[in-house]
Amino acid sequence: MEQFVRSEIAAMAGYIPGEQPQDGEYIKLNTNENPYPASDAIRAAVDAVLSRGLQKYPDAMGWAFRRQAGKVLGVPPEWILCGNGSDDILTILTRTFVGPNELLRLPTPSYILYRSLAELQGAAAEEVAFTSDWRLPPAFYAPRTAAPHADRPVKLAFLPNPNSPTGTFVPVAEMAELVERMPCPLVIDEAYADFVESPAHTATATNCIGLVKHSEKVIVSRTLSKSYALAGLRFGFCVAQPHVIEQLIKVKDSYNCDALSIAIATAAIGDQAWLVENRRKILATRQKLTDGMRRLGFQVIDSQANFTWNTHPTTSAKTLYEQLKARKILVRYMKYAGFGEGLRISVGTDAQIERLLDEMSKLVA
Amino acid sequence: MEQFVRSEIAAMAGYIPGEQPQDGEYIKLNTNENPYPASDAIRAAVDAVLSRGLQKYPDAMGWAFRRQAGKVLGVPPEWILCGNGSDDILTILTRTFVGPNELLRLPTPSYILYRSLAELQGAAAEEVAFTSDWRLPPAFYAPRTAAPHADRPVKLAFLPNPNSPTGTFVPVAEMAELVERMPCPLVIDEAYADFVESPAHTATATNCIGLVKHSEKVIVSRTLSKSYALAGLRFGFCVAQPHVIEQLIKVKDSYNCDALSIAIATAAIGDQAWLVENRRKILATRQKLTDGMRRLGFQVIDSQANFTWNTHPTTSAKTLYEQLKARKILVRYMKYAGFGEGLRISVGTDAQIERLLDEMSKLVA
Repeated sequence: MEQFVRSEIAAMAGYIPGEQPQDGEYIKLNTNENPYPASDAIRAAVDAVLSRGLQKYPDAMGWAFRRQAGKVLGVPPEWILCGNGSDDILTILTRTFVGPNELLRLPTPSYILYRSLAELQGAAAEEVAFTSDWRLPPAFYAPRTAAPHADRPVKLAFLPNPNSPTGTFVPVAEMAELVERMPCPLVIDEAYADFVESPAHTATATNCIGLVKHSEKVIVSRTLSKSYALAGLRFGFCVAQPHVIEQLIKVKDSYNCDALSIAIATAAIGDQAWLVENRRKILATRQKLTDGMRRLGFQVIDSQANFTWNTHPTTSAKTLYEQLKARKILVRYMKYAGFGEGLRISVGTDAQIERLLDEMSKLVA
Repeated sequence: MEQFVRSEIAAMAGYIPGEQPQDGEYIKLNTNENPYPASDAIRAAVDAVLSRGLQKYPDAMGWAFRRQAGKVLGVPPEWILCGNGSDDILTILTRTFVGPNELLRLPTPSYILYRSLAELQGAAAEEVAFTSDWRLPPAFYAPRTAAPHADRPVKLAFLPNPNSPTGTFVPVAEMAELVERMPCPLVIDEAYADFVESPAHTATATNCIGLVKHSEKVIVSRTLSKSYALAGLRFGFCVAQPHVIEQLIKVKDSYNCDALSIAIATAAIGDQAWLVENRRKILATRQKLTDGMRRLGFQVIDSQANFTWNTHPTTSAKTLYEQLKARKILVRYMKYAGFGEGLRISVGTDAQIERLLDEMSKLVA
């Protein structure tokens, strides 16, 4: 079979997502899921779809969601593209902009899936290290790149904001300057944007959706997996100028979102009161997690997401990960070249974080 | 923005799926949906998922479905890959096997989406016409191709069986011979396989899943959209040898199927009694549709699917399509170079088909 498979694919190891035990036996703090159930509004949405039946194809564009999300975010519905999770959105974007032997730019340390998306296209990924204060250096917006990719044009850049695994956030004003300088479209992956803390939390203060209006090069990606507690649903979307959306539509599968997902996502984003209350709880527990880990001697980066990045001066992160797993607590062990290793710990419930801190206190004592 | 978009994408018109009015006002006989609601078993599956909550990621491989489908089809679970509709499966297959400037082979007239899948990869599509008795000519299994693609290697072939829009079926024994001769992997798209009529209807008699065991080059694709009445769900899968599945896993999005879809699909394929009864109804109505259209002067190909292909010696298919649409009946008008135009009409309920025949009788009288 190897002779038939594209050489890029045959050579790939494949992206390995975080462990997803389905038996409910673990305290799962490894893939940044929300520990609380989603809005109750989704039940009525499900009932309505099931009453109508599933035998007909869904609305290929998910207009119900586009209208509702447009209202919430202050953009016209035509500026929104629905996806089967933001993974689908990121795949569509990569396929639209990045061809073989071209270049995809991303920061490091960051979301490692981006590399796989480039590889699938037969393209290369250029990693640009964050500065020590978690900003982007000039290399991130340079029109050309250095060896070994100097001959390849940069066709797309991905930038998660807040970033994973660090939880750091590049302020919107800085992002506006960055966008001006970018030589290619910039996908701002706002998977965690709803968890950004701001003295005045408003839609425009803490995310980059406003920048879309000023530049066709800005594409903001969102997911309902984290802040809407719907990781099991697979629903994401992006916001871009409508002529950009038109190109993306050519690349997406015709019916990439199913009728239940569209209805559930529409109901969830329509319940902003749920979001506000859920966010309040997550932010409070994030502070407890950060304080608790620091008391145990960890270095913890101040996080604007629903997870924290933790390193310990003397104890091996890999060992801690394994010891916690043996105690039925899953966290994410991660290691990046030129950055080092650490534990990314999702913000669970207060009770889950207390249990984690308790077990951890026995391991680093 | 045009300067940033891959030239292949910018040049594409994009695949146009059949019309999907969401208002329920039309009798929809245009996209081969099943007119009956899916198995009642899906409700309990939905309730179980909602009780557990959607906040956690789904099982990335959909093991529950793999095990259940494996039992039904007589293959090990590792031979099955779940997809977000069979569109997702066909996309994954194309991305795995077909690179830029390579060639995808397909029969004509057939499913026009395959062409778009090739274009998205920067590849070309080579169309090989069916013989007049709906078999595959030697050109379909030739190791090399003719102008204008003589320099391009054939990397993958798609063959719907039964075919759309014709509803014709290449017998399994002939498919076995074809597979031996193919110079590349062959995807047998069995979207409509459950509607094939056979004196002794058994799993092996009327589909090609048995061929997978004999050749790593055979990949059988299935969907739950048609015979399980779940077009709104987006669930498909393919059956291939496990080392082939391993390559496809690298290409799929990590969580391509959501928790509700996996649970619903598992419940649906587990209810084979529902399938048998639904199939019986569809086949009976298919006969009424075929007979009725022939009485009205149409040429109708004997169909092994849940639709028929209809041409009229004197009346324009385009006009009939428009007149029916004005009467709130949607059928699919299709036109193929070198084959001509016609109407593809899905098998609805008896009442829907009676209504269609009644309206049609006024249009061709």
